[in-house]
Amino acid sequence: MIDPTRGARHYDVVAFVGSLRSGSYNRMLFNNVRRLSPANMAISELTGWDEWQTLDVDLLNDGIPDAVTAMAQRIAESDAVLFVSPEYNYSIPGGLKNGIDWLSRVSPQPFTGKVVGIMGASTGAIGTARMQYHLRQVLVFLDGHPVNKPEVMVGRAAKEFDGEGHLVSEFYRTQVTELLENLARQADRFKD
Amino acid sequence: MIDPTRGARHYDVVAFVGSLRSGSYNRMLFNNVRRLSPANMAISELTGWDEWQTLDVDLLNDGIPDAVTAMAQRIAESDAVLFVSPEYNYSIPGGLKNGIDWLSRVSPQPFTGKVVGIMGASTGAIGTARMQYHLRQVLVFLDGHPVNKPEVMVGRAAKEFDGEGHLVSEFYRTQVTELLENLARQADRFKD
Amino acid sequence: MIDPTRGARHYDVVAFVGSLRSGSYNRMLFNNVRRLSPANMAISELTGWDEWQTLDVDLLNDGIPDAVTAMAQRIAESDAVLFVSPEYNYSIPGGLKNGIDWLSRVSPQPFTGKVVGIMGASTGAIGTARMQYHLRQVLVFLDGHPVNKPEVMVGRAAKEFDGEGHLVSEFYRTQVTELLENLARQADRFKD
Amino acid sequence: MIDPTRGARHYDVVAFVGSLRSGSYNRMLFNNVRRLSPANMAISELTGWDEWQTLDVDLLNDGIPDAVTAMAQRIAESDAVLFVSPEYNYSIPGGLKNGIDWLSRVSPQPFTGKVVGIMGASTGAIGTARMQYHLRQVLVFLDGHPVNKPEVMVGRAAKEFDGEGHLVSEFYRTQVTELLENLARQADRFKD
Repeated sequence: MIDPTRGARHYDVVAFVGSLRSGSYNRMLFNNVRRLSPANMAISELTGWDEWQTLDVDLLNDGIPDAVTAMAQRIAESDAVLFVSPEYNYSIPGGLKNGIDWLSRVSPQPFTGKVVGIMGASTGAIGTARMQYHLRQVLVFLDGHPVNKPEVMVGRAAKEFDGEGHLVSEFYRTQVTELLENLARQADRFKD
Repeated sequence: MIDPTRGARHYDVVAFVGSLRSGSYNRMLFNNVRRLSPANMAISELTGWDEWQTLDVDLLNDGIPDAVTAMAQRIAESDAVLFVSPEYNYSIPGGLKNGIDWLSRVSPQPFTGKVVGIMGASTGAIGTARMQYHLRQVLVFLDGHPVNKPEVMVGRAAKEFDGEGHLVSEFYRTQVTELLENLARQADRFKD
Repeated sequence: MIDPTRGARHYDVVAFVGSLRSGSYNRMLFNNVRRLSPANMAISELTGWDEWQTLDVDLLNDGIPDAVTAMAQRIAESDAVLFVSPEYNYSIPGGLKNGIDWLSRVSPQPFTGKVVGIMGASTGAIGTARMQYHLRQVLVFLDGHPVNKPEVMVGRAAKEFDGEGHLVSEFYRTQVTELLENLARQADRFKD
Repeated sequence: MIDPTRGARHYDVVAFVGSLRSGSYNRMLFNNVRRLSPANMAISELTGWDEWQTLDVDLLNDGIPDAVTAMAQRIAESDAVLFVSPEYNYSIPGGLKNGIDWLSRVSPQPFTGKVVGIMGASTGAIGTARMQYHLRQVLVFLDGHPVNKPEVMVGRAAKEFDGEGHLVSEFYRTQVTELLENLARQADRFKD
């Protein structure tokens, strides 16, 4: 539980959902995140990064596009960043990575010092673990601070959501809640 | 050296250059690859993947775009695939990864059984090593067969190319040659 | 199936079992490997590496211990190497890695050019995936050629073995068989 | 610089040196760490882990050896843990990993919540980067909190130490100092 002595604090979390598919298990997982988030945490999805062109460093000579700058500003102002993403070809989806690549070019780099939560769902048993460790390595460079535990890796996702898209097992619902609590706790630790 | 008893064989290699920047060190490195390639190896760059939109699996219901199908066909017909790429944020550039993600959706998946060479250049000391190990993990899923050695990681690239973009050190020129030779040798091993 | 035109060939596989615990799931998995191996494949476990002291490079001045040299020789003569191992702390068990470190100091380095199969069992859902990708990276340096597929990751192992230690699901039994077949096939490819 | 308002605090850091070789570059690097450490930081090396036998989980039935328990206790009491280690075969030295594996079996697990610094030296260009990312993944499981920056990767080590074993370049001396400062700062953040 979030410490009640910190109860007055409100947490502003921005989120990336790495899958664009409308019926995606990661979209379902994110909907569960919203439903399970504590009252003092607002979770806002960042959208539009999928429409950014492939990063060409020459383009930076013309300045960073406004949409990138605005999203970077939004991240910089937030208390924490949440990634809810599938694994594509054993790594981070390329489009999501391209979004991160663009955002990392804004100065000040928006992920610096930011606490980060990671989760994902997949139809296989491994539950996006491989994507998550690659993303953790990316965050070393970006100087983000990912929460260690719980690692929310929803494997065999076809059996883990009911007809309304709700997580059916208490295990994963508890994990989601704990990750959000630990995200808030870690945000407190890295608040200057 | 490529075994003269296989001298009659011609190797058709397709290449991805992961950086779009015109003056990129990886573009320079690729130009050196062309210059140093053996007479019986043709190296064709695959271009246009940077213009593909972010993969949305729902889009696949409308069929794979022709450009993706055509590139997949070109890869499937080749003897080997070469990646010459920078490292963005300690991993594979997002745009390049998005290209791979699209191509992996074509059936038959074009990287299956394909031998692969990997190289990269960076201004820092590490020379894209982190990108290369992530790409190797991607290739486990895609069932590609990356050459182990030499690992061409051109660090401190600003000092490694002359005014004409030629690699200045014998060390890296030899590495490039050896990687191409080993690519041909491994292509022979995996030829059915 | 192993191609009958290669039926005359016999495959000599040496194996490391990374867990020392007598009732270990990886020991059980290895026993299934022996039971399921094709008639023309002999699988010999390499033992004793767990008694080697921590590698101290100064010790090499006194020469490599006989037990290390003998095991390296045995590996060099084999057609393929199989690792059946748990995951300790999200990576390779230290003792097994110490064995590999010692063996890598023998000249010629015994893993060079050797084809490799990897499998593992764990009580959690991830089934040693993290260990396996670390081991694959080690094999880049050692110039081994790990089989890509199938990746045998027996998760939730407590439910996957019966009272006699037999794999209960057809899925994993088939995977074990396929990995051994692909190991033989890849050994053919890398045979000079 | 360490914030003077925290000047009264003293930091107790325990360190693992992953190489046993007397003339090791990592031993030299650790000697520089001691020399460059701030006045309010004591750095104590943990020794003897290299004499522990290969972890066999059956042995745990007899209880954890006293030396392991004592070292775990020492880690638990410390403010931070420092790893100074070579890279063996593109990963963590097996002996050091075996030490970590043993320590992770003590309850309470001593690395939980501990902030961690990582550095290493190698004769090649990559400077132990591959070992460091594997160790970072291990620390996710152990719930340690590695400092992101600077990543101290002393490549081409033969040129980086003088006859007395001192780091010759200001660049690396500054990096060592900064890593220790950031270790103290992060220890403050994770102090309950």
